[in-house]
Amino acid sequence: MQIAILAYPGMTALDAIGPYEMLRGLPEAEFRFVWHEPGPIVTDSCVLVVGATHSFQETPAPDIVLIGGSIPATMSTAADDGVLTWLRKVHLGTTWTASVCSGSLILGAAGILRGKDATCHWAGQRVLTTFGANPQRDKRIVRDGKVITAAGVSAGLDLGLWLVGEIAGQPRAEATQLCIEYDPRPPFDTGHISKASARNKADAVLMMKGMISARDAGAEVVAGSKVLWANVIDRVRRRSAAKP
Amino acid sequence: MQIAILAYPGMTALDAIGPYEMLRGLPEAEFRFVWHEPGPIVTDSCVLVVGATHSFQETPAPDIVLIGGSIPATMSTAADDGVLTWLRKVHLGTTWTASVCSGSLILGAAGILRGKDATCHWAGQRVLTTFGANPQRDKRIVRDGKVITAAGVSAGLDLGLWLVGEIAGQPRAEATQLCIEYDPRPPFDTGHISKASARNKADAVLMMKGMISARDAGAEVVAGSKVLWANVIDRVRRRSAAKP
Repeated sequence: MQIAILAYPGMTALDAIGPYEMLRGLPEAEFRFVWHEPGPIVTDSCVLVVGATHSFQETPAPDIVLIGGSIPATMSTAADDGVLTWLRKVHLGTTWTASVCSGSLILGAAGILRGKDATCHWAGQRVLTTFGANPQRDKRIVRDGKVITAAGVSAGLDLGLWLVGEIAGQPRAEATQLCIEYDPRPPFDTGHISKASARNKADAVLMMKGMISARDAGAEVVAGSKVLWANVIDRVRRRSAAKP
Repeated sequence: MQIAILAYPGMTALDAIGPYEMLRGLPEAEFRFVWHEPGPIVTDSCVLVVGATHSFQETPAPDIVLIGGSIPATMSTAADDGVLTWLRKVHLGTTWTASVCSGSLILGAAGILRGKDATCHWAGQRVLTTFGANPQRDKRIVRDGKVITAAGVSAGLDLGLWLVGEIAGQPRAEATQLCIEYDPRPPFDTGHISKASARNKADAVLMMKGMISARDAGAEVVAGSKVLWANVIDRVRRRSAAKP
């Protein structure tokens, strides 16, 4: 079973890494982190670098496709013809097409959510409708046929665990949950917009805006297999040191 | 506020990425992924590559140190003199020294947990006592002075959010929780050993053993800033393709 995770510049790492750790509970899963070409990808923190291992061209028939979200780069990725063409093509043959957070907007831009129930980060629910999807804002994960979308960032853990259950059965999922010790006990209770105060929401919007401008200020793509690692790190470090 | 996250070959990515996403809610946090030298680090899946951005030598005085765990590489990292020397030195000046999962065993090996309450992944609780720690197996996160340890893998999200609250106050932590939409709803309920069946436990142990042998079969360190990215990716891909 081949699992292709989109690795794109500006992505939010946890969106991808949460489900990836859960899906490792599938027997004989082969993971690929895919982008236009293999190479280092700088995530939305501008500090964490992850590796794309395979190109789109090399990955024409994954069994599962997973698209995470981003604070600053969702819409640019959703306007990337190479991404959309690949997504439309592989979606025809997937067993599951999945997204976390604003990754559903990239699926939407590819036309995959037209007429479908779907979810997204709470801040992106309205945008879903522009792609013809029916937002399900109170659900943590939403399944419509073979398309499964999750709410914001950390919802990818629930999505990944649910998928393990669907694919490999409940005993395997239960063992995975125990391996990952996924027995969450958040010290606060403002994780869903319905539980958050007006202040929580205003503060969260401000934080996200700050992350967008930090990224915009240093926006650049460092990718490609011919990159010397030192060059990637130099850029990351310079940007990090230049922070206000 | 400088936050240094240990990035070591064989690490479990979610152990580090969970708290990292939460800690990004701290105002003016400067993140560093540290190792002997900057360069690409192949995690325990043998597929996911993350970047170490700074060396130990360049990072003598972080405010927060965070050590994640690993399935196959905890004990080799806990026997790495360079890691232990750095940890002992920086711990003297940290505001918080933190671990997730079996990362506490690395703190233990550095002598940091002697006489302290601490926790670990359920499978590593007993080993904690060999380092003079007092295991608290029923707690998700354990604070003893400035040392804070978390249970397995996903417990890093709770640890990270708790730390944001301690450092920046509850409103900031609440906004962070909303940004990350951390309103977990696991589809099963076997995340704590006390809730798991004998079969769940046997299955989980088998899965973890499988991950250890997969890693041992392909164990190698790819690191260093002079590495061409293509070489890292080539190795990762060859190993992935050679999987049984």
